[in-house]
Amino acid sequence: MKIETKLISFPEGIVLKSGDKLDSFDLMVETYGELNELKTNAVLVCHAFSGNHIAAGKKDDVTGWWNQIIGPDKAINTNDYFVVCCNNLGGCSGSSGPISINPKTNKVYGSGFPQVSVYDWVASQKMLMDKLNIPYWHMVLGGSLGGMQALQWSIAYPDKIKKAGIFAAAAKSSTQNIAMNEVARESIRKDQNFHNGNYIDHGVIPKNGIKTARMLGHITYLSEEHMDSRFGRKFQDNDTKVNQGVDFEVENYLQYKGKKFSEIFDANTYILMTKAMDGYDAAEGLSSLNDALNSVTAQLLIIGFYSDWLYPPERGKEIQIAAMNNNIKSSYVVLKGEHGHDSFLFHNERYAKIIRKFLES
Amino acid sequence: MKIETKLISFPEGIVLKSGDKLDSFDLMVETYGELNELKTNAVLVCHAFSGNHIAAGKKDDVTGWWNQIIGPDKAINTNDYFVVCCNNLGGCSGSSGPISINPKTNKVYGSGFPQVSVYDWVASQKMLMDKLNIPYWHMVLGGSLGGMQALQWSIAYPDKIKKAGIFAAAAKSSTQNIAMNEVARESIRKDQNFHNGNYIDHGVIPKNGIKTARMLGHITYLSEEHMDSRFGRKFQDNDTKVNQGVDFEVENYLQYKGKKFSEIFDANTYILMTKAMDGYDAAEGLSSLNDALNSVTAQLLIIGFYSDWLYPPERGKEIQIAAMNNNIKSSYVVLKGEHGHDSFLFHNERYAKIIRKFLES
Repeated sequence: MKIETKLISFPEGIVLKSGDKLDSFDLMVETYGELNELKTNAVLVCHAFSGNHIAAGKKDDVTGWWNQIIGPDKAINTNDYFVVCCNNLGGCSGSSGPISINPKTNKVYGSGFPQVSVYDWVASQKMLMDKLNIPYWHMVLGGSLGGMQALQWSIAYPDKIKKAGIFAAAAKSSTQNIAMNEVARESIRKDQNFHNGNYIDHGVIPKNGIKTARMLGHITYLSEEHMDSRFGRKFQDNDTKVNQGVDFEVENYLQYKGKKFSEIFDANTYILMTKAMDGYDAAEGLSSLNDALNSVTAQLLIIGFYSDWLYPPERGKEIQIAAMNNNIKSSYVVLKGEHGHDSFLFHNERYAKIIRKFLES
Repeated sequence: MKIETKLISFPEGIVLKSGDKLDSFDLMVETYGELNELKTNAVLVCHAFSGNHIAAGKKDDVTGWWNQIIGPDKAINTNDYFVVCCNNLGGCSGSSGPISINPKTNKVYGSGFPQVSVYDWVASQKMLMDKLNIPYWHMVLGGSLGGMQALQWSIAYPDKIKKAGIFAAAAKSSTQNIAMNEVARESIRKDQNFHNGNYIDHGVIPKNGIKTARMLGHITYLSEEHMDSRFGRKFQDNDTKVNQGVDFEVENYLQYKGKKFSEIFDANTYILMTKAMDGYDAAEGLSSLNDALNSVTAQLLIIGFYSDWLYPPERGKEIQIAAMNNNIKSSYVVLKGEHGHDSFLFHNERYAKIIRKFLES
């Protein structure tokens, strides 16, 4: 599989939905496979909240977050399709974001990086499409926040997208989703090392806050059933406790996962990404989701997972109903999923088959 | 209604389940109504994790946490019953706990207060019963962690309890319950003012950590449906924002609730109470809940609420099944409940009637 990774600059900048402007920005982009001569085989993969541009392949210790789905002869077959993935604007894996240097000030953006939205990501991905000389996407797809981008693509650029795959996602976050994200943000903001988002200037990182936030996030990504069967009420061995406050295996696991994440993820990006997720509402300013979808021409594949309690299947159903009301060609599938919300990340025969068939139909 | 509040000392101390010993301890106790001559009308009410001894009545700004249920002519009629409630050992409302003075050192216990358990609470309540010259409880009841105590009473002292009311509770916490509590504890422990639990010595309070913990707790106490209908995705007015990080009403509400709680509740008690909740397993060391209940003679009333996702009705059903397997006289009722887990706190015609009938049967 041909893999190319490059930083693409947009010196023309972008005016964000908020009205704020970035005079210029970069996107870190990775592509898999090759664009065919007719340029009809391009697929855009959008990442979820803590993902990045590395969607497939294995390099050193790093495996692409959707490597089970993207690759030669996989569900998204890179022998046939040219797959593009970029780190979202505001991310912390190479694209312009809070840890980047603000070219205006030559200092790290920190809290000065503007809030971006799902709308802005889609707009910047459109700019990327143009820059890559791709006339349209054969398909745009993603899970969770990535699924929101796929949905928004179908709404914003109906003539630039043939198919959209919206997995473990929703047309808007629920009150409980927002509430959970606010707790996570609060734990970051109140970390003594946060310094109102300007921690890099202070030479510190609010790791404790990110860790707590991730521990909470992790609970919402897993299904209760999965957690229960995996950890139950088993006590953690004394020898392998991460600290003495821990009694149960599940606590140790969350502590471990949270700590690891806090060492690689940026706090401002955490806040920005969750705010973008909370803020997205496909029907914003309209009377209903039906209205939002009335210009959609792409074919939709909506997949939900029974074990997902963050964006449960009902959220996907709402999109399906609005699609049907607009006579959009759409399929709505609910899979069991063993991993709760995270199920969209994992290969499963049926899941892979559904994606493959939809891509090739 | 006659209300008496008193601090009762137990100079004899208590050996805890962990093996730790408190050489002496105090319980802050409040009683409602009067013990009849035959001493057959005593009811013990056990509080939930953040409750205290003030279960009923109104004094100044303080309303008892179960005032909707306990009082003259209410579900628990104080014209007929003598209701006793104590702040649990390890609490922060007058009973011996982390903010008390350790008589051995003449210093605040802080992190030195031993971990107590549901078993220890029941044992200390038994000592209280003896001290009050009450021969047995006509009924022991409570919601959430209070329901766990009621269940444990029926197991530990079958000849001292006629009836037990177990509401919005479980025979053990689930993996997800433990996980959520661990996130809350983590946010407290990592507050820069926590000082390993010895914050009083440092003249500070880890309010930020308690606030974040409570924000999370609050989400788990409310039903998703209730949150959704109450807040939805409404934006908070700029004028009434608690801070500028807030966009949505639900965020503002959680911020407000969390902050208020952080001003009155003790951080070490928060950790201790949640650890007690996580640690409780009625069937600990036994092969099943059936075995745990095999000496129970009390009549059980188990109430669950459909909107409760912290201790959902299935948890109550597990107790009911074990009770039936032991031929225990028991009733299992599931009510709608509009307030999620917190539903047990609120008056509702049917709920009140069920409690009243059970008490009087």
